[in-house]
Amino acid sequence: MSGRWARRMDGVRPSAIRDLLRLGADPEVISFGGGYPDASLFPVEELASVYRGLLVPEHADALQYTTSNGLPGLRRLVAERLTRDGSPRTADDVLIIQGGQQGLDLAAKLMVDPGDVVVTEDPTFLGALIAFAPTEPAYAVVRTDKHGLDTDDLQRVLEANPGAKMLYTVPDFQNPTGVTLSYERRHRLLELADEHDLLVVEDTPYRSLRYEGSPLPTLLSLDTSGRVLHLGSFSKILAPGLRLGWATARPDVLERLALLKLAADTQNSTLNMAATAAYLEAFDVDAHVARMVPVYRHKRDLMLATMDETFPEVVTRTRPDGGLFVWLGFPEGFDATDFLARELLPQEKVAYVPGATFFPVTQRPNHARLSYSGVPDDRLVDGLTRMAKLLHRAL
Amino acid sequence: MSGRWARRMDGVRPSAIRDLLRLGADPEVISFGGGYPDASLFPVEELASVYRGLLVPEHADALQYTTSNGLPGLRRLVAERLTRDGSPRTADDVLIIQGGQQGLDLAAKLMVDPGDVVVTEDPTFLGALIAFAPTEPAYAVVRTDKHGLDTDDLQRVLEANPGAKMLYTVPDFQNPTGVTLSYERRHRLLELADEHDLLVVEDTPYRSLRYEGSPLPTLLSLDTSGRVLHLGSFSKILAPGLRLGWATARPDVLERLALLKLAADTQNSTLNMAATAAYLEAFDVDAHVARMVPVYRHKRDLMLATMDETFPEVVTRTRPDGGLFVWLGFPEGFDATDFLARELLPQEKVAYVPGATFFPVTQRPNHARLSYSGVPDDRLVDGLTRMAKLLHRAL
Repeated sequence: MSGRWARRMDGVRPSAIRDLLRLGADPEVISFGGGYPDASLFPVEELASVYRGLLVPEHADALQYTTSNGLPGLRRLVAERLTRDGSPRTADDVLIIQGGQQGLDLAAKLMVDPGDVVVTEDPTFLGALIAFAPTEPAYAVVRTDKHGLDTDDLQRVLEANPGAKMLYTVPDFQNPTGVTLSYERRHRLLELADEHDLLVVEDTPYRSLRYEGSPLPTLLSLDTSGRVLHLGSFSKILAPGLRLGWATARPDVLERLALLKLAADTQNSTLNMAATAAYLEAFDVDAHVARMVPVYRHKRDLMLATMDETFPEVVTRTRPDGGLFVWLGFPEGFDATDFLARELLPQEKVAYVPGATFFPVTQRPNHARLSYSGVPDDRLVDGLTRMAKLLHRAL
Repeated sequence: MSGRWARRMDGVRPSAIRDLLRLGADPEVISFGGGYPDASLFPVEELASVYRGLLVPEHADALQYTTSNGLPGLRRLVAERLTRDGSPRTADDVLIIQGGQQGLDLAAKLMVDPGDVVVTEDPTFLGALIAFAPTEPAYAVVRTDKHGLDTDDLQRVLEANPGAKMLYTVPDFQNPTGVTLSYERRHRLLELADEHDLLVVEDTPYRSLRYEGSPLPTLLSLDTSGRVLHLGSFSKILAPGLRLGWATARPDVLERLALLKLAADTQNSTLNMAATAAYLEAFDVDAHVARMVPVYRHKRDLMLATMDETFPEVVTRTRPDGGLFVWLGFPEGFDATDFLARELLPQEKVAYVPGATFFPVTQRPNHARLSYSGVPDDRLVDGLTRMAKLLHRAL
């Protein structure tokens, strides 16, 4: 039987992030690895009250099956959220999904035949590469800088790959780099997508976590030809343990995604959908986010300041305006995977995600992704200082 | 863009069951359509108490990400359940999935390249056909009778399809027929699977809902060569709205399924996993099932007795020892889809699932699946009596 796996399994392999998420569970390790939100910020009491209200005999339906597109009440509330963010939508335009990650799986299933070209930022979100892998894509990658994906490079890449079908992007506080796509480039990206008839997958898990500056319009709101599949998530604004996200797209796209969702797992948890809808009705989630923002801003500032103070000057880093991640660049020849496995983790019990696996085509070993969101202040400073000590020795 | 969908989308189409699940939401319709458990049997108070215990600041981790294989505590409890059912397992042998349905999606991804032959009962679970469709299988189907899949026919089918890779079966109280695979045939099925090197997907959502007779050993427990992928679900023993199921298989299979699970949606709801583990620790789920069994047995008996009393004699039916479904056979030439759409639903507001779509290869129109589980007694009798009246006129 073991010689009989489907061909797609050749590309489905264990990933570094998975092992690191496991490491993160060891309480002795100071892990900057996972993109975990700070659990102390979860609105536990409010959620307790909505679950209490639902888990009564009169609401036994909250434990029953429901429609695979998601509870209508929750879809309406997500539509209102999208409308407030510049893209008028109704409940019928929304599909509830098992976190943003499921949207990536569904998008690839919709578009990608083996060998089809998917265009991504370079580096890009590792979870997207993991989600796309079973559809056996080829990748064409676009250079990024501090204003996000470089649209001049995108133009070249699309001319070189006329069959490209799908562009995947995290415009706000990208994973792993933390950078945000500029206003001009958002327009240009959509122009190029129109010219090349691409599906644009706009992934926005961190969009609400902005620590400075003004929000830029979503690609969805700028799109005039219905080619943006917009994915959002409650993981960072409410709690990841609910596994709830949403997709919106033009009707012929959304209908197909809904069929793929039904095929994949029937539906999301009715109870979690009902609870999230009740939470959104009873409480002000934007006020909740507004309370989280200064906490994360403080953590970001603390990480950047500690790096400024302690890290060797040759180590470059991004300065994110929001989100959860700082991206480090080490000198050429430095292998961040090696450094983690042989020195940082065994000697100092500190972890990050090595950057290599975020590059879909040519893995550059001299990068690392660090998240500040889930680490208490004292451990954050302690972990970075210990890392700095080893870096000074290594560089 | 609309001409650019992946090829797999040719086989991903709206299904009858989906529209019917929607119809079931109209409170005026007496629907025998969905395989909904009776919501009045959900252990609402017990679940309320475990959610209350978890939604406190000390357990904020229940709202956080966790390992993609599922909470270790829940995996251990599922392993203990499997062990009690004749298959000794540990937590490491268990993968938590988004209901049994996700196991079908993962199994097909693991095994099926376009055109690969999947062997199923004829008829088989429509949800499995929906789950498998994105992998573009071909089907070879095996005759069933009141003892389940006919292993003599299976032998012929496998000889005619030497490349077959995977056999999908619901051995206990099959969906849609309600029949149970006999002891002798379980052994013979595994012998044939060994000869032909098949992955056997054993789907057991209804296994605990036995109303008479003794449980037969699972295929998993009889398997000596590690070729059974066993799927189970909390949907029918606890509540479908939690979306929790499990998969167990030999390590090289389970590891690959876990990678596909990670790719598909990262993980199940941490909160629902923690709550289900806490429920299983604090309460006796088998005692809960033992309280449900007489209720469902009564409903089954009421459906069968009402059919005996009111239905035309030419309508055949199965007599399930458990589970949720009765399968009707109408005379040749009768179209159960037509009858539903043109007479039963508009005139009497009664619904079932037409049988045609449960046949993977040659759809036989003269069948229907009826579920008794979610319908109150008076509506059950009323709905069947109204259906009988129309049937007498039509036949």
